[in-house]
Formats: sequence, structure tokens, C-alpha cells
Amino acid sequence: MSRFWSDIVNQLTPYTPGEQPQLSKLIKLNTNENPYGPSPKVLEAIAKANSEELRKYPDPNTKVLKQTIANHFELDSNMVFIGNSSDEVLAHVFRGLLKHDKPLLFPDITYSFYPVYCKLFEIDYVQVPLRDDFSLNIDDYEQANGGIIFANPNAPTGIALSIDEVEQLATRNPNSVIVVDEAYVDFANDSAVRLIKQYANIVVTQTLSKSRSLAGLRVGIALANAELIEGLERIKNSFHPYTLDSLAIAGATAAFEDHQYLEATCQKVNTTRERVSQRMQQMDFTVLPSSANFVFAKHKSESAEKIFLALRERNIIVRYFDKPRINEFLRVSIGTDAEMDEFLAALTDIIAGE
Amino acid sequence: MSRFWSDIVNQLTPYTPGEQPQLSKLIKLNTNENPYGPSPKVLEAIAKANSEELRKYPDPNTKVLKQTIANHFELDSNMVFIGNSSDEVLAHVFRGLLKHDKPLLFPDITYSFYPVYCKLFEIDYVQVPLRDDFSLNIDDYEQANGGIIFANPNAPTGIALSIDEVEQLATRNPNSVIVVDEAYVDFANDSAVRLIKQYANIVVTQTLSKSRSLAGLRVGIALANAELIEGLERIKNSFHPYTLDSLAIAGATAAFEDHQYLEATCQKVNTTRERVSQRMQQMDFTVLPSSANFVFAKHKSESAEKIFLALRERNIIVRYFDKPRINEFLRVSIGTDAEMDEFLAALTDIIAGE
Repeated sequence: MSRFWSDIVNQLTPYTPGEQPQLSKLIKLNTNENPYGPSPKVLEAIAKANSEELRKYPDPNTKVLKQTIANHFELDSNMVFIGNSSDEVLAHVFRGLLKHDKPLLFPDITYSFYPVYCKLFEIDYVQVPLRDDFSLNIDDYEQANGGIIFANPNAPTGIALSIDEVEQLATRNPNSVIVVDEAYVDFANDSAVRLIKQYANIVVTQTLSKSRSLAGLRVGIALANAELIEGLERIKNSFHPYTLDSLAIAGATAAFEDHQYLEATCQKVNTTRERVSQRMQQMDFTVLPSSANFVFAKHKSESAEKIFLALRERNIIVRYFDKPRINEFLRVSIGTDAEMDEFLAALTDIIAGE
Repeated sequence: MSRFWSDIVNQLTPYTPGEQPQLSKLIKLNTNENPYGPSPKVLEAIAKANSEELRKYPDPNTKVLKQTIANHFELDSNMVFIGNSSDEVLAHVFRGLLKHDKPLLFPDITYSFYPVYCKLFEIDYVQVPLRDDFSLNIDDYEQANGGIIFANPNAPTGIALSIDEVEQLATRNPNSVIVVDEAYVDFANDSAVRLIKQYANIVVTQTLSKSRSLAGLRVGIALANAELIEGLERIKNSFHPYTLDSLAIAGATAAFEDHQYLEATCQKVNTTRERVSQRMQQMDFTVLPSSANFVFAKHKSESAEKIFLALRERNIIVRYFDKPRINEFLRVSIGTDAEMDEFLAALTDIIAGE
């Protein structure tokens, strides 16, 4: 508290990021980072941009990057918005497209940043409970709303809603913006991007932090029709026009040009995920069907918190949420095969009470 | 206009950045970039950070960078706030520390982003006219206010207010936050940083874009007592916690470690500035006394807009503001000596009507 703070500051409950411990011998399965490095072409492009030219401002409109992304998704470049991480993109989406008189709707269990944005931007919201199996029932969204947002695949459950159902949400709510937060979509089967030319009210957000192995570069995007994108640009240009530094622009452009690398990496992660899921089921875990680079699982008898702490003692960090409905689950990011073998061995010991 | 936009979006008048034309044979003196590249140690540090490690999230608290900056200014690290450019830092300052019931005060002629932030965050403001000679009279700030902000040295005039007068403002307004936007301070003689341990209500913002030749890296800072910094951290962590990418963290840390390079660069720029000022005065320009890396000047008889356009035809870009009180002035960034010789030669021709 300070008398110098604006009123809003006192009302905030900031987001808590997953811990980033600086231990070296750590198996870090808590923030859904990709175990494989970025494309070598990304590192090359950054090396080229790392020059005397850094004295100059970057292009505030990131024209080259926008066009590369537009080409990748077969969209016009005015349907692409770029930000310093998908968190920043989401912040602009909340402020620019989701603040209306009627409340915003989102699932009770989803990315825990959504209620934080609502507090910061003073947006009314209603948290709509997921089904008992953590799937999203679109019928539950048949209520007055000023917008709908959900992660797809959802976090931390990993469960994906079908794109047909996303489309139904857009059709049923023609006056609301429907935001599909696709942070993990490249590990899944389908994306809502193919709907945005047809639906004026769909916004898709994505990140380069997961599938493209660039959490360290902070690049996120929104894709939507030009009118919605213009709203986001107006916010951005009233806040900070030169969002991305020159190195991030270069790296992100190279990342979108190397589609082959993306596909190969995602396939490796998904193969490991299926193997880990099976092994955990054999250990009496219920593992939710994941379309992301993590699994969300609960054991038949052992407490999640206890397993979390026991793994931590063995220098393996996973994510535990002490929240209603999910406090018996652990979220485990998919690492390399070697890392996951160590994880599974430790888990076997812990479950056996060793 | 779109029915999907939040109300605020319709009310915005986004900031217009100086143009970034992509011509190669251009002498670009319009955005106050440093003509000298960043310290070689910065490029080395970035090269080292450009690795497989980019797959991981950066430290959201930028602990190492904060400590380096704290050491540099002889402050505690909880007196340092770091953002993706000083524009982002200023945005958080406006929202977190300057939105109060009473209006914010700032000069009528100053960084043109201030009224843009006020509109975005719905902050009442009063623009206080500078004196006829464009100096700031602290007596004019003796009125009810919820905060005061000004650039020092001021932009686009280059005129600096003495730190004694900054101190008087802080003393006279003990219940208001006084923000000193020191984007250009390293080209000047004195900084308000030395006041912040003593005054609970002073915030100093700085950027790495000008004196440290890193406009392409997007790093800005705020320095203030821990209580004010905590207010900014709360906003940041409700908006986007991982603000700086790993490359920017590495580069910025190296930049603050190489103080010698900074001083040498600033001295070169200042020497050139004095030479250019003198030559322009000889050409019948009134040149305001600049403590920054640009000069603000008006000619005795030729219109600024005409000179601006004639320079542009010669591939030399300076900044012209078509605004009351300053529409007879040109703002000219200080380039290399060779660039400024070309600028001065072109100017001589233009004034001579050639």
C-alpha cells in the first residue's frame, strides 16, 4: 500500500508464474517449455541481426514478420497482430475487445491469467464450470455475455474442444468476440485459424514459446479479421508502438519460415507424451487426454502435493495447483525421453513408498 | 469503428512514431538514434545468449540486470524497475502512479506520448505552457495536481531543468509523484537519480535507446523508492510478467557494465552537437540550448516545413512537428560528423535557395 499508488494497484492480485529455479542439475517439467531447442535457422537469423544496427529502432509495424506469418496461415497481413509474448497480446485483447457491459465468460479451470487481466482492466466476468471430466460444454455458454475466451487445448488439462464446437460458439454468439487461446495448438490436431475468414468475431492467439521453442524470445500473435486487428493496433500504438526488438523480429520470422522443424519437434514431443501417459496409467494415474505438451494426471491414492514435494526432493519440478477441483492433479511438461525416463523412475519409487 | 471494440478503443488517438523509411542511402536524423553502434561487449553478450537456451523462459524478475543497474546507480535492487522500452515503463507509471482524482500536469510542449497515455488510461490532465523561451517555470506547477511529469532534458526542445528545481518541485508537491523522464540525460550534466533516496515521490525513467545505442533492443527502466517500484511491479505482473527476452536481458546487462563506452560515445555526440549548433547559428538559425542528442532550431526567414521537405528531397530526414508554437522549428538528431557535414552542406544550399 502506498498513497502514491493509483486505486487500481491496491485491487490487483498479480499472476504467479511457474518458478524458474537456477539450479543446474534440475529436470524442469513445470512451465511447459519445449525440451528441444529452436530451429538452427532462428539462431542464424538472430546472429545476423546482432549487429551495429541495434542502434536503430525496429520497424514498429513488424511488416516483414507480419507478411511471413500471413503467408504461413494464408491470410492477409492486416489479419495478423504481433506482441511481446501472447500474454501481452492477450492483455490488449482483454482491454480492446473483451471489455463490454455484459460479463466475459471463461471456464472455471483454464489459464489463470484471465481473471488477473479482468481485475486490471475492470472487466466483469463469470467463470463457467467445466464438466466433471473437465471438458467444455458449449451449451453452458448460452447466457448473456460480452465475450468468451478459453484456451484450446485447455490449460492445465490439455483437453481440446473440437473446431466444430468452436464454430458453433461463434455462430450462437454473433455479437460477442470469441477468443481461442491456442498456446498449445501445434501439439493438437486442428486450429480455429481456418474459421477466421468466415467469422468476423473469432480471434485466435498463439505463441512461439511452446511449439517453436522460443519462450526466451517473447513473441505472441493474434489472428482475426482486419477490423478486430485494427482495434488491437490502436491499443498497442497508444501503449508501446515498438513492441518487438530487432532480434525477436528476426528470430520469429525465421521460426515461421521453418515449418518442417516445427512439425518434427512437435511430433517428437507428442510421441513421448503418449508413452509417458501410458506408463502413468499403468501406475494407477488417471491421465486426462492431452493435446498439448504436458499431461495432467491424478493418482488413485497418493496425494498430488505429496508426489510434487517428493519429486522436488529428487530435483524434478512439476506444477501443482493448490486450487479447488484440481488440487489432486499434477501438471507434467513433456521433456526429452531421457528426462521423462528419470521422471518415471522417480515416480515409480515415490508411488512404491521408497 | 467496430461493434466488437471496447468503448475506449474508439476514443484513442494513437502515437505517431517518427518514420522508419527503408531506403538505404538515407541520412536519418529524425528519431534521435545514436549514430555510433552499441558497445562491442553488448554484442558479445547477446551472441552468448543466442543459444539453445532460448527454449526456456527468461527470468521474469530480471534479477541479474536489476542488480547491475542498482550497482551502477548505487541503489538497492528493489529501487529498480525494468520494462520493454521506456515507453512501456511510462505506460505502467501512468496507470500505476499517475492516475488520481486530481489532474496530471505536464508541459504543453514535451514528449507527445503523454496525452496518448492519458487517453488510454482515462487520466485527467492539464498541459502547462512553457515560457516563451521554452524553459519550464516551476512556479506554474503551483496548482492542484495528482502528479507531474516532464522530460528532462525536454523533448523536442533539448532544454534541461536544473536538478535543484526538480528538487523544489518534489518538496512543494509532497503528495504527488514527480516523474522525471530522463531519456536523454546521459548527454546532459546532471540527473535526478541522486534525489530518489531522499524523496519518496520522485520517479526517474531512462532508456537504453539513446545514449546506449540500443533502440533496437527495447529496454527502459524506472528508478524510485521501493514502495513506488512495488506499485509498478504489481501492474507489470498483472499485465505481462516476462517483459524482457533473454537476449535483451543479456545485452542490457552488458551495456550497464560498460560505462566507459557510454561516456566516450556521449562525449563524441556532444562535441558534434556543439559544432552543428554553432554552424546553424551562423546560418541565422535560432538554436535552443540543447542538453540532448539533437538540436531544435528555427530559421530567421525560411519556413521549417519548406526546409524539412527540401532536406527530404536530398535523402536527409529530420523531424518536423506541425503543432502550435513549434511549427517553425526542426528537430535534428546528431549523426556522425560525416553525416552532419552532409546535412550542413545541404542546409547551406537550401537556405541559399539552390
